[in-house]
Amino acid sequence: MNEAKKINIALLGLGTVGTGVYKVLKMQEEEIPRKVGAELAVKKILVRDLKKAALKVDDPSVLTNDWKEILDDESIEIVVEVMGGMEPARTYMMEALAAGKNVVTANKDLMAESGRELFDMAEQSQKDLLFEAAVAGGIPIISPLKQSLAGNHLTEIIGIVNGTTNFILTKMTSEGMEFNEALSLATELGYAEADPTADVEGLDAGRKMAIMASIAFNSRVTFRDVYTEGITRITATDIRYAKEMGCDIKLLGVARNTQEGIEVRVHPMLIPSTHPLASVNDSFNAVFVHGDAVDDAMFYGRGAGEMPTASAVVGDIFEIARNIRFGCNGRISCTCYKELPIKKMEEIESRYFIRMQVEDRYGVLASIASVFGNNCVSIARIVQKEKKNDAAELVVITDKVRERHLNDSLTIFKGMSMVKEIPAVIRVY
Amino acid sequence: MNEAKKINIALLGLGTVGTGVYKVLKMQEEEIPRKVGAELAVKKILVRDLKKAALKVDDPSVLTNDWKEILDDESIEIVVEVMGGMEPARTYMMEALAAGKNVVTANKDLMAESGRELFDMAEQSQKDLLFEAAVAGGIPIISPLKQSLAGNHLTEIIGIVNGTTNFILTKMTSEGMEFNEALSLATELGYAEADPTADVEGLDAGRKMAIMASIAFNSRVTFRDVYTEGITRITATDIRYAKEMGCDIKLLGVARNTQEGIEVRVHPMLIPSTHPLASVNDSFNAVFVHGDAVDDAMFYGRGAGEMPTASAVVGDIFEIARNIRFGCNGRISCTCYKELPIKKMEEIESRYFIRMQVEDRYGVLASIASVFGNNCVSIARIVQKEKKNDAAELVVITDKVRERHLNDSLTIFKGMSMVKEIPAVIRVY
Repeated sequence: MNEAKKINIALLGLGTVGTGVYKVLKMQEEEIPRKVGAELAVKKILVRDLKKAALKVDDPSVLTNDWKEILDDESIEIVVEVMGGMEPARTYMMEALAAGKNVVTANKDLMAESGRELFDMAEQSQKDLLFEAAVAGGIPIISPLKQSLAGNHLTEIIGIVNGTTNFILTKMTSEGMEFNEALSLATELGYAEADPTADVEGLDAGRKMAIMASIAFNSRVTFRDVYTEGITRITATDIRYAKEMGCDIKLLGVARNTQEGIEVRVHPMLIPSTHPLASVNDSFNAVFVHGDAVDDAMFYGRGAGEMPTASAVVGDIFEIARNIRFGCNGRISCTCYKELPIKKMEEIESRYFIRMQVEDRYGVLASIASVFGNNCVSIARIVQKEKKNDAAELVVITDKVRERHLNDSLTIFKGMSMVKEIPAVIRVY
Repeated sequence: MNEAKKINIALLGLGTVGTGVYKVLKMQEEEIPRKVGAELAVKKILVRDLKKAALKVDDPSVLTNDWKEILDDESIEIVVEVMGGMEPARTYMMEALAAGKNVVTANKDLMAESGRELFDMAEQSQKDLLFEAAVAGGIPIISPLKQSLAGNHLTEIIGIVNGTTNFILTKMTSEGMEFNEALSLATELGYAEADPTADVEGLDAGRKMAIMASIAFNSRVTFRDVYTEGITRITATDIRYAKEMGCDIKLLGVARNTQEGIEVRVHPMLIPSTHPLASVNDSFNAVFVHGDAVDDAMFYGRGAGEMPTASAVVGDIFEIARNIRFGCNGRISCTCYKELPIKKMEEIESRYFIRMQVEDRYGVLASIASVFGNNCVSIARIVQKEKKNDAAELVVITDKVRERHLNDSLTIFKGMSMVKEIPAVIRVY
């Protein structure tokens, strides 16, 4: 153990998260030696625009636009990748690990795609690769899954892991807004990006679920394994009907470790209003975990933002600094020691909420019921709602059914003239 | 790093938690070498009654009633204290640490009273002393506070950290039961002990808050520093009135790091029904944390029980095993490097809910208002509720007021004949 050591850090990027990390390290400056037993110094910051970045730091001499300057500096022991995107972030991280530096990253895209090769490199160099900030921002979840909950066979992870869509659904629920109106508000308030696709289509959540499923089930899951479906087709009407049934609609990431393989998917879902996830509102995130020993647990907090994300990054930096002091970097590396199959989406079982507009005449209900019946779809509940333009609106809740049986029924409905439209097909928790 | 090492463990105690730990280690047996890089073997279990314990284990030869046999066995590297109580648990833990063994404990009483001397001994021997299970059962909270959230100045911790009282209050809320009825039900279902004092008077919660405050604020807080007030005087009427005001009543542990020192207290409190803690029901626990970087975060789960508590203990055992492999035991020891003052309870500021029975005649309201006014208590809201036996029931909600000013007013009311009774004085979040 080296007392009063000084540990040098390099930041790659000085955008929102990078600036947050710089601020938090300054806010903690006085406490750091007592917390981690070493001084931490930001020795270099890699930026594109030196002039613009100079306004954000006390000492502009730490700024550089030359990665080699950081890579070749042997005194830098921790590289903090907060630039985002796939390249050059991936190359820099690989090079840093190969050069024997520890790496912290907030990059979910990269971890969800290239986690394995990064971990292989970290293991080879016996260095730390930490990424708490890559999932659910400031909420400690990666470290609890790898450490405190490691005594469990985790069977299920359900997450609200995208703040933008949760904000939109909250506004649609509490104020009856339609999707487009709520999206505009989210954009106005800075919760949604100019191109909101990755958020509203569930891609961002899908990447986070891939990372969490890998850790929870000890088997590599990549983004390609995740089924994603967004919230663009959810309407205020669906939310209102769901409420009448004691449910809320949330964009949920669901990962399950089943006998037949791992299920990982992101899609809107009806969830009982009494479930702890149902009261996670606005831009908050939460991750619900079930394990054979711990039973149910939930982690809640800010899933994004400059300071919450920086909180997670700095937690990882402290962890690495403690490991450097005690010479035990690499003590927790990749935990994917199994190779479990991924279950096909069509084999997954769910209950369903189906809203359909049908002709308002005798016999229609019977025909619909028989299509469901012929395709092994058992109906739990059916309600006829208000009529519009000679069409009756039906809401059907099914029992648990295989996706492919449901899809078969829907295909048949599409060819039936008495079924005018099926505006909503939403899974039920 | 020693590959394929075998690490020997001793359990002290084979009660509920000890049995749970034994079970979880068996359930994880196959995975442990891949998870922690070493085999874990339960070499000895200290019990009082060898015969009774023999029924609970595969191989009764691991049982002993002689502590020396464990202490003197140099091959035992981890001692797991799950016997509870102050002595001999304290002595055994001190001796184990002094002998160079790592210690895991689920003992909140001991950690809240003797944390400092135990940590001093652990530091001297450079061994691990972990206690995740001592607070909030299976919920990972100690490790997130010490690690993932270490980049924060934490300013507030609010916890529902006693399952028995939360179950009682939930029943009083959802089914209108009175305290005694709900307590009987809790006893019947095994949620309350034969002597429920430690739970219903807030002592158990107080110990957990002392431990969490110490870690969160980096300054030693012991149980003696915690103000505790239980739920025995809460009535179904108070809960109903609270609901009318959009609040729930919970037994909350509150710890705050203020300019004038640390506040730590446990008492019933009205909390807005929209607050994430308000929907923590039945025997579930939750800890809400506020930090300057992470903003709000919450940790939710099972606060007690054989398997959830064992989940936390086994997480700690794995952590120590990883440290043993990498030769870095003691890497995170006591984090109380400050000596902050404890704020006196009478200097604390709260809002209050006060229910009082007063004479039903002109002038009473004015007299009461003037007593409050003369004692610097500002009234936010006053509602006259139903009349009973010629007395009017008043509910007063105050603005933020110092405890001692409120107490001064209450003393004066006690001497006034027009005030017949003050059945409820409850703080408001």
